[in-house]
Amino acid sequence: MPTAKAEQAARTRQRVLLAAAEVFDEAGYEKASVTQIVERAGLTLGALYFHFGSKQGLAEALMNAQPTTIEPRLTSTGLQRLVDITLVWADRMKRDPVLRAGVRLATEQGSHGMNDATSFEEWRALMCSHLDVARCSGELRDGLDTDRLARFVVGACTGMQVYSDLATKRDDLMERVCDMWDFLLPSIASEAVLRDIHVGPTRLPAQ
Amino acid sequence: MPTAKAEQAARTRQRVLLAAAEVFDEAGYEKASVTQIVERAGLTLGALYFHFGSKQGLAEALMNAQPTTIEPRLTSTGLQRLVDITLVWADRMKRDPVLRAGVRLATEQGSHGMNDATSFEEWRALMCSHLDVARCSGELRDGLDTDRLARFVVGACTGMQVYSDLATKRDDLMERVCDMWDFLLPSIASEAVLRDIHVGPTRLPAQ
Repeated sequence: MPTAKAEQAARTRQRVLLAAAEVFDEAGYEKASVTQIVERAGLTLGALYFHFGSKQGLAEALMNAQPTTIEPRLTSTGLQRLVDITLVWADRMKRDPVLRAGVRLATEQGSHGMNDATSFEEWRALMCSHLDVARCSGELRDGLDTDRLARFVVGACTGMQVYSDLATKRDDLMERVCDMWDFLLPSIASEAVLRDIHVGPTRLPAQ
Repeated sequence: MPTAKAEQAARTRQRVLLAAAEVFDEAGYEKASVTQIVERAGLTLGALYFHFGSKQGLAEALMNAQPTTIEPRLTSTGLQRLVDITLVWADRMKRDPVLRAGVRLATEQGSHGMNDATSFEEWRALMCSHLDVARCSGELRDGLDTDRLARFVVGACTGMQVYSDLATKRDDLMERVCDMWDFLLPSIASEAVLRDIHVGPTRLPAQ
């Protein structure tokens, strides 16, 4: 059972993370300052450094927090779970600053001298695990390389988001994600399940 | 017939563009300075401002020069042309600083306050035109939306490049592009041509 002190620490950490997400999302990594972040959080610089060590540590924590903002919302399994992850991700990119900051920091990290593929590799491993369940359930075509498919989906989502953000401020991100599955599913899903996999905003869990 | 003066101007413009590409590719947009660029080109600041107006004008010219570094190398048509564009692109990302800078600037532009989808939309229109030829030649499955497929391929290539750069310094970019076609072609190509579309580094034109 967490002590009151541990709970307090977790709350403080979460406040810094949310304030940092908002500032990074608005200003980008370079222009964001730690002073701005702690002012927004109503905390001290000490709290920031205690929990994250540095501005870069904060950016890394945000990049790596992405799956935790999606996975707890889902109950489906196998191939449908993979589809659902991307749909919930597209939806939450419109409204969740922690997710948005994590994705933006991961994509633009080259521009501020960081070079960390961890958040991409974690998405890939997570998606691959759901695809392996799909394979065991006979949902995939024979010979499909689940790790390479997971790698492709992570890359495709990354780029669709960049393009959609520039072209429509992400208004068409959900449509683009649905298109991806329309193009991929006939190649990857077994005949037996192809009609049972559902794609579209109706898959989103109730808020 | 271009005059000697016009030829000289075109050469100067190209020298600035190449020097800028190298500097942006090494340092990113924010850290690159116009002084550094003209020194590398062995030219004056006046030449840079005459041809490009500003550092941002230079970045825009590089972002929009991407297709011109690929298209003249190819002779195939239809769906094979679309595949070939992506293969040559993956190959040249390893060795062409003008292409690499254009892609990097387009992808990271959010971090320096730019917001210009032009280079993405130009790739999309170009790819869509080749897909429309493919459709007229009976190479595509019925009902395929060529514009949405072009939009998807542009987005997917954008993201594969970001992920591949972070994970392997683009060593596996060619493999990732080939995977994309392995996953897409069975869904999009008509039965009649599926076996005739070739994917792999053997498609690269002789240097």
